[in-house]
Amino acid sequence: MALLSTALTEVLIPLASIIGIAFALWQWYLVSFITVSPAKSADNGTEVSLLEEGGPDGPDAVIKCAEIQEAISLGANSFLLTEYKYLGIFLGGFAVIIFLFLGSVENFSTSKQACVYDTSTECAPALVTAAFTTVAFILGVLTSVLSGYLGMKIATYANARTTLEARKGVGKAFIVAFRSGSVMGFLLAANGLLVLYIAINLFRLYYGTEWEGLFEAITGYGLGGSSVALFGRVGGGIYTKAADVGADLVGKVERNIPEDDPRNPAVIADNVGDNVGDIAGMGSDLFGSFAESSCAALVVASISSFGTEHNFTAMCFPLLISSMGIVVCLVTTLFATDFYEIKDVKQIEPTLKRQLIISTILMTLGILLVCYLALPSYFHIYNLGNTPRGVHWWGLFFCVAVGLWAGLIIGYTTEYFTSNAYSPVQDVADSCRTGAATNVIFGLALGYKSVIVPIFAIAVAIYVSYSVAVFYGIAVAALGMLSTIATGLAIDAYGPISDNAGGIAEMAGMSHTIRERTDALDAAGNTTAAIGKGFAIGSAALVSLALFGAYVSRASLTTVDVLSARVFIGLIVGAMLPYWFSAMTMKSVGKAALSMVEEVRRQFNTIPGLMEGITKPDYATCVKISTDASLKEMIPPGALVMLTPLIVGILFGVETLAGLLAGALVSGVQIAISASNTGGAWDNAKKYIEAGNSEHARSLGPKGSDAHKAAVIGDTVGDPLKDTSGPSLNILIKLMAVESLVFAPFFAAHGGLLFKI
Amino acid sequence: MALLSTALTEVLIPLASIIGIAFALWQWYLVSFITVSPAKSADNGTEVSLLEEGGPDGPDAVIKCAEIQEAISLGANSFLLTEYKYLGIFLGGFAVIIFLFLGSVENFSTSKQACVYDTSTECAPALVTAAFTTVAFILGVLTSVLSGYLGMKIATYANARTTLEARKGVGKAFIVAFRSGSVMGFLLAANGLLVLYIAINLFRLYYGTEWEGLFEAITGYGLGGSSVALFGRVGGGIYTKAADVGADLVGKVERNIPEDDPRNPAVIADNVGDNVGDIAGMGSDLFGSFAESSCAALVVASISSFGTEHNFTAMCFPLLISSMGIVVCLVTTLFATDFYEIKDVKQIEPTLKRQLIISTILMTLGILLVCYLALPSYFHIYNLGNTPRGVHWWGLFFCVAVGLWAGLIIGYTTEYFTSNAYSPVQDVADSCRTGAATNVIFGLALGYKSVIVPIFAIAVAIYVSYSVAVFYGIAVAALGMLSTIATGLAIDAYGPISDNAGGIAEMAGMSHTIRERTDALDAAGNTTAAIGKGFAIGSAALVSLALFGAYVSRASLTTVDVLSARVFIGLIVGAMLPYWFSAMTMKSVGKAALSMVEEVRRQFNTIPGLMEGITKPDYATCVKISTDASLKEMIPPGALVMLTPLIVGILFGVETLAGLLAGALVSGVQIAISASNTGGAWDNAKKYIEAGNSEHARSLGPKGSDAHKAAVIGDTVGDPLKDTSGPSLNILIKLMAVESLVFAPFFAAHGGLLFKI
Repeated sequence: MALLSTALTEVLIPLASIIGIAFALWQWYLVSFITVSPAKSADNGTEVSLLEEGGPDGPDAVIKCAEIQEAISLGANSFLLTEYKYLGIFLGGFAVIIFLFLGSVENFSTSKQACVYDTSTECAPALVTAAFTTVAFILGVLTSVLSGYLGMKIATYANARTTLEARKGVGKAFIVAFRSGSVMGFLLAANGLLVLYIAINLFRLYYGTEWEGLFEAITGYGLGGSSVALFGRVGGGIYTKAADVGADLVGKVERNIPEDDPRNPAVIADNVGDNVGDIAGMGSDLFGSFAESSCAALVVASISSFGTEHNFTAMCFPLLISSMGIVVCLVTTLFATDFYEIKDVKQIEPTLKRQLIISTILMTLGILLVCYLALPSYFHIYNLGNTPRGVHWWGLFFCVAVGLWAGLIIGYTTEYFTSNAYSPVQDVADSCRTGAATNVIFGLALGYKSVIVPIFAIAVAIYVSYSVAVFYGIAVAALGMLSTIATGLAIDAYGPISDNAGGIAEMAGMSHTIRERTDALDAAGNTTAAIGKGFAIGSAALVSLALFGAYVSRASLTTVDVLSARVFIGLIVGAMLPYWFSAMTMKSVGKAALSMVEEVRRQFNTIPGLMEGITKPDYATCVKISTDASLKEMIPPGALVMLTPLIVGILFGVETLAGLLAGALVSGVQIAISASNTGGAWDNAKKYIEAGNSEHARSLGPKGSDAHKAAVIGDTVGDPLKDTSGPSLNILIKLMAVESLVFAPFFAAHGGLLFKI
Repeated sequence: MALLSTALTEVLIPLASIIGIAFALWQWYLVSFITVSPAKSADNGTEVSLLEEGGPDGPDAVIKCAEIQEAISLGANSFLLTEYKYLGIFLGGFAVIIFLFLGSVENFSTSKQACVYDTSTECAPALVTAAFTTVAFILGVLTSVLSGYLGMKIATYANARTTLEARKGVGKAFIVAFRSGSVMGFLLAANGLLVLYIAINLFRLYYGTEWEGLFEAITGYGLGGSSVALFGRVGGGIYTKAADVGADLVGKVERNIPEDDPRNPAVIADNVGDNVGDIAGMGSDLFGSFAESSCAALVVASISSFGTEHNFTAMCFPLLISSMGIVVCLVTTLFATDFYEIKDVKQIEPTLKRQLIISTILMTLGILLVCYLALPSYFHIYNLGNTPRGVHWWGLFFCVAVGLWAGLIIGYTTEYFTSNAYSPVQDVADSCRTGAATNVIFGLALGYKSVIVPIFAIAVAIYVSYSVAVFYGIAVAALGMLSTIATGLAIDAYGPISDNAGGIAEMAGMSHTIRERTDALDAAGNTTAAIGKGFAIGSAALVSLALFGAYVSRASLTTVDVLSARVFIGLIVGAMLPYWFSAMTMKSVGKAALSMVEEVRRQFNTIPGLMEGITKPDYATCVKISTDASLKEMIPPGALVMLTPLIVGILFGVETLAGLLAGALVSGVQIAISASNTGGAWDNAKKYIEAGNSEHARSLGPKGSDAHKAAVIGDTVGDPLKDTSGPSLNILIKLMAVESLVFAPFFAAHGGLLFKI
């Protein structure tokens, strides 16, 4: 038995969650000290007047900032509510499908049946598990919605505050942005854990010691989380990039006005987009990853080891790892906000990177502690019903740790390929000398190349963790990578907040110094966003593989043989799906951006005095274009991902579906990494030229030079790659896997119609 | 037994080859009637003066054309000879490795050993098979070199002739270009078949009835063919695109002079590139596909059915299919050159497309005939040593036919996505309205989307052919797709010849009418080139899978289970390799293009009178830059492909290698299709705007408009995608598979060192 008692486990997990939530609220409270309300701007103004900056950053700016923040917040709020309404209808229908399909496995019988794995005992009827799965699904949906929504709230609360703090120096502004990111990170990690924990305990009231059914039902939580994430990422991604691309194409390229210029009609939509896409979408995405990896680990454990032995503490090992993660991230956050102070622009990126290392090192120790306390010193894992594999507690430590460190390697590789401090991005910037074409060629090549190291890291993590503890090892490796999610999310959310802060500074007409400071924050944010995406993709690969293992087990497959034609056609079609999906999402962004361009051009051409800054543009129409386009365009790619496993499972059966999942996984992870790194590199190559911080960079600039124009084109192409199709792909991989897992009993019972004929 | 006697089989195959060669020579003879020699230009001039066109197309033009042709021919010749010299050294070394590695399987023993499959009989020692494999490898290398070289010869012979014939009308010019393409197609198909046939018969002198060893040794032929193809495609691809991109970036974009303008110093290099890349490289590539699919079918048959029964006619079934293909293509060619005449520009594309349908329909009948005559009415195929599967002769007909028709579907899909007669390319052209960024986004999305139908076609072909006759079915399906290779190559080679013809017309300063005609030929050529690439990729997928099956069988694997970590890490790393490879090749093109740009700019800036057309540019330096860059840059990607199977096999063993092959296959085929279609679409979107044949097209043009400039950028980005990395990827897939097959006995004996520790 584990050293940690069941009772203590029952206390520690909710305690960690509550600490996380409390910490988040405390961070929020600290941010709230900065006043942006126009009413109170008087006293704030007194303070401001003591600052170095003169007129443009005075009380008037505070009022303007407050107005802009209000507009962005309103736009984001109304979009998310509309999006969630649509989602509610779609996912409500899907919940019914889950209940009906899973209920039909035993033909809606209400009597107990022999269990799948241990046929000597009786298990709850499929109908009950179907009902619980549906409940877990709905819980997952609600928690995911909450994660995205709260993230958006704090981000739109913090953006103007970051702008205003930038008057006091880059260090102060950094702290506001980073603290706000932490609010999101901790709320998400803690809420996700708490809801999951409560659900497990409630379900236990019915299931008692029948953990096979319990944790099968819990997988619905992961499915719910990822379903919201899919639509959130795709819808938000289309929204933000339609606005961004549209705003840039007319504003920067045609009219030669700066980014975020208030004369640009699409500028509010662009800033709203950052909050609904990069913040809410990403929040749901990472919540989905967290929920799925937890569910994967739990379901694998329930049927392969601790579940059959009813060792509650060991069973809760995944949750304990996440609890430890919250504590470790809490300490890590203090390093950025309290122990150090940023005094110079050049310190921003190292500070953010340091967060990653600190959390990884601390977490390694944390994992060791959890493994020692929560695991029996020696236990068995059953691999797909084969011979049991003996595992020492320290063996599992290696599984979690290899995932954690693989995440760090992926993060650092991503940084190397997307930060303009290193040669890859500088080479891309240099290629702008000969125009946009070479810029695009070099950027694509960079993205392709950036895949190599992450894939090797993932391959090593898979090999090590699988060798130690089969699919349970892979599941906990994924958890390891995600254990520092609160820190990861904090530095990830920091990016769009800084981006918005810069936008608000520009729109409020604040001084050049402020803009420079927010730009520096933002440039670091691009890299951290890419790192965050790297984590999301790497963990998605591991999570999907763990889910795949659980699916195979649930579907009673003992091999997935590539030499079987059924599997192989699944494999090749699965490898095609990410392309199909990317084609849809990129085309959607392109189309929506075209309508945005038409509208922005129309406004510039028809509204007199707009270009001169005398009259205000019609921001609302642009917001509406982005909203309508994203709500309409998110349906087909969403349906592709949600329906493919159902169709393939029903028509072609569990083997072809297994091939499909493997194909989508190995192909999707490459496109996802290359797309998000290519996009990040182009963005920073442009920023490199704009900043002009070196002899080389100055030889390419300044803004408006031919090389800079070429860089802007690359940046624009990269937008949908890095913020729409790239990051959505990891949801595609995960979602198809978790959906297949949830429906596995149904496919095993009724699937493969086409081959049966 | 088969209806066709062994003796007749022995006659028919060489007969078909000789007919093919004779037909090719006859076509060449017909082309040779057009005189371009400056000496004879006098009489030709008389004839010309009777034509409608006036001065610029008169005798002086003929002399100029002859000079330019001479320069292109010299450049191509010298590059290929240098390339082959390098190749000779590298592949000579590789031949030694083949011999040593395979010889070491039985520790260089010279005594007979029990056979692998039928252990009751004795087989030739591994050392002897190693020697024969090496000989087959060298034969493959030589035939592949010959295929590429002869193709280049006829192409550089025909280009100026096409230009001159364009004076008489577009129909006449079409016939010259098409006939010359046919010369290449038939020479390649017939030579490949003949050499293979002779090799088999010579090897039989030693092996007698021991076909297991014989056809194992024959696989070296496929490896040799593909090795040359790899370097040919990569080297040629870098050459042509460095020159093309470099010429365009300075000429079209900066200096605003037309494509192929003689003032552009890179113009000769650009035209040389078409011949060494698109002609010689593609020739070697398709020869490789042909050789590999034949070898795959032969080796699978030798160990799974006919080989064990020593049914020579049935064993030669793959060769008989190819023989029939030559005859069918011969008839098909007459439809284009003799039965119909093109009178209008609009008829070009339909005529080329008709070639595909005619050959496919005729070939379906041909296959039926061959199946009926050459196969026993009922026979058995052994699947990896499992229970035999009974196959009727008409079952195998379906296998070959499904491959053939899948090829047609792939061809037509490619046409739909790359021809500017349909909405996809027109949408891309339309997106140029908002600049290069949207053009790139739409183009990438188009490429991704174009993957869907071909993958379904391939999946169906795999499923049907595998269900009927396991891996032998897949091998003959690949052969079916390649059976009309002579026609496929003819319409494929037609493209670069027309492209060159246009270039020569421009350089010789001929009239606008001539250029318009050659441009029309060239636009159709872009589509046919994309179709050709589609065929090459589709067949590569099938060939690789067949080779994969043979490899698995040779390596004594009975399953390739994705659930095994060894296989899975192979799968995910394999799926990464095409990205790594593409990163290398694209970066190489980018780098080489940058040096080309510098050189071209230098010449424009330093040579007085160049822009005014008074002084000649220094073409030779540009040729040298392309030559040096491609020879240097082809090594790393070439080494990646050639060494990966060896390293993985030796260190990780046959299972991981099997996963690697499957991963590279399912991932590579997608990138290859999307890259070549994206590139083709951009090229034709640009041509669509330039031609201005519709209201819509005119609204985007004319040349030099903003939309056109955006289109040029897309076209430039597409160049390395469609002509370097895309088409090289199918060689990557095939080559790794055939290499693994050849080395399988070695890996099985000595591989997997890392896991043995």
